[in-house]
This record gives sequence, structure tokens and C-alpha cells, in this order.
Amino acid sequence: MLLLINIWMKKKLSNKILSEKKIINNFFKRLNFNKTGTFNFENDAGYLNISEKYKTVVTTDTIVENIDFFSKDPPESIAQKIVCVNLSDLYAMGSLPKAYTLNLSINSSVDDKWLKKFTNKLFKLQKKYKIYLLGGDISKSREICLSATFFGKAKLKNILSQNNCIISDDIWITGNLGNSFLGFKLLTKSKIKVKKTEFETFKKKYFYPNPCSFGYIASKYINAAVDISDGFYGDLNKLLNTKVGAKIKISKIPILKKVKRIISENKYLLKLEDIISWGDDYELMFTSSNQNRKHLLLLAKKQNVKLTNIGTIIKNKGIFDDSMRPIKNLQSFDHFS
Amino acid sequence: MLLLINIWMKKKLSNKILSEKKIINNFFKRLNFNKTGTFNFENDAGYLNISEKYKTVVTTDTIVENIDFFSKDPPESIAQKIVCVNLSDLYAMGSLPKAYTLNLSINSSVDDKWLKKFTNKLFKLQKKYKIYLLGGDISKSREICLSATFFGKAKLKNILSQNNCIISDDIWITGNLGNSFLGFKLLTKSKIKVKKTEFETFKKKYFYPNPCSFGYIASKYINAAVDISDGFYGDLNKLLNTKVGAKIKISKIPILKKVKRIISENKYLLKLEDIISWGDDYELMFTSSNQNRKHLLLLAKKQNVKLTNIGTIIKNKGIFDDSMRPIKNLQSFDHFS
Repeated sequence: MLLLINIWMKKKLSNKILSEKKIINNFFKRLNFNKTGTFNFENDAGYLNISEKYKTVVTTDTIVENIDFFSKDPPESIAQKIVCVNLSDLYAMGSLPKAYTLNLSINSSVDDKWLKKFTNKLFKLQKKYKIYLLGGDISKSREICLSATFFGKAKLKNILSQNNCIISDDIWITGNLGNSFLGFKLLTKSKIKVKKTEFETFKKKYFYPNPCSFGYIASKYINAAVDISDGFYGDLNKLLNTKVGAKIKISKIPILKKVKRIISENKYLLKLEDIISWGDDYELMFTSSNQNRKHLLLLAKKQNVKLTNIGTIIKNKGIFDDSMRPIKNLQSFDHFS
Repeated sequence: MLLLINIWMKKKLSNKILSEKKIINNFFKRLNFNKTGTFNFENDAGYLNISEKYKTVVTTDTIVENIDFFSKDPPESIAQKIVCVNLSDLYAMGSLPKAYTLNLSINSSVDDKWLKKFTNKLFKLQKKYKIYLLGGDISKSREICLSATFFGKAKLKNILSQNNCIISDDIWITGNLGNSFLGFKLLTKSKIKVKKTEFETFKKKYFYPNPCSFGYIASKYINAAVDISDGFYGDLNKLLNTKVGAKIKISKIPILKKVKRIISENKYLLKLEDIISWGDDYELMFTSSNQNRKHLLLLAKKQNVKLTNIGTIIKNKGIFDDSMRPIKNLQSFDHFS
């Protein structure tokens, strides 16, 4: 837990790196939001206060330097990513986020300035999502590595699973796919031609993903849900779970016109089909009885969430287009522009 | 969670490394012990089933290659360390372990054989401590890095804190200190003279630490507790929390005669005082009213736990020896042989 402050930690953290005690006192202490169960980060464990009526929903994710982010990325972006990947999973389970623990492995590239930016962003996100830091651990490593475990609450009957879709269910997607993908490509392939304002817009989508809370809000209408973190194709397969199939209205897959235009203007550098193998938009894909259509659309409007019906769960295993032609691989999606 | 199996993970894990899906199916699936809340590792989150009468106690720790272990260490040792460091914290809080999540960041040195040994050990430890794997995450990194978050249950009134010691409390230590330290030194300093059987004994103490469950068992007699993970001196200071002091019967600090002999026979390579700055024995240090002495000793005998009364909590801030001479630093302990 965060206040493993003493000799062991000092052994771990080289002199060049700030001591754990200093890091906790200077940057992390205020993130406990004065909750009793955190023991003010002065214990090696904490406790959760989840009301008796609810189950404690748990998710955990790790992000690693040079894989999920680069050391030059803004610390605020790294903070937002570790929060988003986990909140996205909690919401997709139909639960309301409550608290989290953070395991931070850092190297000498992490200094006071970095930690200030990183924890300021965590503070803002904690306020926004009404969550607090329960505890954690700081250690030294060659690459920056962050693991976080998030806790949410949900009534047992409202907990969503990926594997509960029912034949003839509608398949829905929130928001738009591909914005984060385009942002990443613009950052890493400098030859892509794009307006400066567009560059800024999509870079922000890549650096600062937002989790979609619609899974929690609409849980009573949802049969099966997954957050799109592994790409549309992969996550759709998770919902189908080799038990049923999907008929997809490919033209309905929600991608901004602007994104399609930029891709077609840079066709030697960008491929539209890549969008569906890229998941970092953290939108929600879920299935629901077609009797819920009106309720869902009304709720989405109220919550200011874009909601698109992209197809139907069918008995035939596999993924098919409107004409029931099998979509066998990602390239099969290349006619959805 | 463990079943983020698809495209995103395949992107993360290079071809040389086993795919996450294969790793989960071949090695981790049986670790869920068929608990409903794990969703058979087919969801991105799970839920905890803690009875309404209890609080969910949470702790988390990371261990990193080249700091907490070496890549050549037996995978079974790495498994035991990540379980021990966390169980030790749960017990020290007076809670009973229930479940855990595991975030595994691996590189290409990790193969099928490694994973088999690692998960076989986890399986055995899960049986021993009656815990199950709730979920987790597998990612690629340059160094092996393991984070685990452990969940225990405790009634609120039984939850122990590090900062609740009371003046005139006895200070107790379980087991013996220094066995793990000696094991580490024997492994890394080949010049130390020692019998082969002793080498094997202490190597085992270093590779396979065991958490002490006495904090949970005796929680009703305990005022403040800490597991000795940061060294005797550092952890004692945690208990005192700059509010009170301790009078220590230095000769009582429990160190095996065999350890003292080996150190004195190798005095240019080993220092006795280092033992108290080394915490990897994971013994428990706690304080208790002197009225509980008989009860504690009886309970310890029943549980086959060695228990040593090493001193008293006093009003004067600081750490003192029997003659009230201040012990200012680790070297001050060098007369405790």
C-alpha cells in the first residue's frame, strides 16, 4: 500500500528517484479524499465501504511504457489512460465506480514536475467520476508501468456479462469509432495531410480517452455488453462467444465523415479497415431486446450519448453483412466506407 | 481482466510470446476455483462475494525483476513472493484472505515451462490459503513485473491499524528475523562459509517466504500491528508513528543461534545489524496490553507460532534500549548479538 515508506522502499528507489514517503506526502495524500478506509495511506491495506445491498465489482488493468504509451507523452494523458481503461470495464459491467488502488513502477525519468501533472490529472478525474484512491504501491523499474485495480458497486441483478446476448437482440454502439486510431496515426506518421485544427482534435482523442458510462445507466435494458478496447471485430466476437452470430449493417458502423475523408485523402498511409481493429475509443457495444429500442434512444438522448443500431444477433454462428455474406476477416470490412 | 484475449492483446504480445488467450486457457483458468464472480475469466471484470457482516479489506503490491527477484529465480519463488507480500499485509490488518487479482507483465524469457511452474505454485498456495483468482491482466514489458491486489474480510471492530499502540503495551514479534537476509547473502556472496545443509535451509527461507496469519488469529488482543517487510527498525517506527516511543530488550530480538554463529564466522562479509534493516521474513510485530500476555502465549502455542516479547511502548518518543540509552540508527543495534 502507498505508505510502505521506509527502508525497504528506500532500498528499492535509487537516490536519483524521489523517496516513496516524499512522493506520497507531496503528491498522493490528497487523493484519498479523506475516506476512513484509506487510513490516510498510513497502513499497508485499506478497506472498502460498499453498502450491503451491492456487490463489489472489481477490474484491473496494466499499461506499460512503449506499448500503451510513450515516455514523452503528457503525464496527464497517462493518468487519463489508466483511469479510462478501468472505468470503461466497470461501466461495461453495469456498475458505478467507487474507488481504486494504484501500483506505480517508475524510473529516473519521473520527476517532481511529472508527478505533479500526473496527480493533478488524477485529482480532476477523481472529482469527475466521484472516485477516491484507496491505496497503492510505488516501486522502481526500468520502464514506467502502471497497474490499477478499480472497484465499483452494482446490484447482482444489474451486473452485465459479455456472454448473455439473445438471438434477435439489437446490437448497439455508443459514440464513434476510429477517432483515437486517427490521433495515434497523426502523431506517429508525420506525412499524413490534415488541417491543424483536425490534428489537435484527434490527438486529443488519442491522448485523453473517455469511458462511456451508458452501460451503467442503461443496464436494465442490456443483455450483454463489452467496451470496445480490443477493436470492433474482436470485441464483437467476445459478445458472440462462438455460440451465436451477428448480422451487421456495415454502413451503419459509426465513423465520423471527417475521419472517412481524411483516410480517403491519405489512402497510402491510412486504411479505413484498421479502425475496426483498434479499440482505444472505449465506446460501448451491447445487445438489447428490440422491444427496448425507444427506451434506449430516449435515454441516450437524455444523456447526450450517440447511439447506433448496427445489427442483430442471429442463430447462425459467425459475422455476416446485410446480405448474409460472411465477414471472415478485417479486410472484409473495407467496403464500409 | 484476464480475458482481454483478442486483437488488442495480440498487438501487445509479440509473436515470440504466447498469446494471452492461450496463456489463460492453458495455465490460469483452473485458478478461478469455479467461483461465479470470476465469470470463468470471460468478462473484463468480476465481483466479490463478501458477506454483509464484513468489510472488504484491500491491499496491493508490485514486485519487479532485478529489484524484488531475479529472472533466473525459480518461477515458484516469484509466485510465492507475490502471494506472501500481499497475504502478509492482509493478516497484519486482522483480515482473512479471500481472493486476488493478478497483473502479469512478461517478456520473451517467459515460456510455457515457466508459466506451468508459476501457476502450479499459485494453485498450491491458493489451496493452502483458501483464496481464488478473481481476474487479472497480461501484458508485455521489457522486465517481468507483477502487481497483485488481494481481498480479505474482517469485521470493522477487528480491523487492525499500524497507529493504535497504547503506552505500556507489550511489543511482540512472531518467528525469527534474519533467515531470509542470510539466504539472500548466501546466494549472492559465494565466499561466505557455511554448511551445505544450512545453505539449502536459508536459500529456501529467501525464495519461499511465508506470511504470518497470527494478526488475523489474535486480532482481538492486538492494538497495533505491522508486518516486518521494511525491516525491524523501519517497521517499529511505523508503529510508534512519531507519537510514542519504545523500550527494546535488544537481546530478545528473535534471531536463530545458527544465524548468529554463521554471521560471526563470516564477519567480514556479514553484519548482524543488517538483519534489522531487512524485512523479507514477513514476521508480524504488534503491540498488546500486558494483561493479554497469557492469552497471547497460549494462542501462539496452540498455533505453533513462536512469539517473543521484545519490549514496551513508552511515552518518551524514540527507540531506547533496556537502560534507556537512545538507539539512533541501525548500527546502535550491533550489540544485540
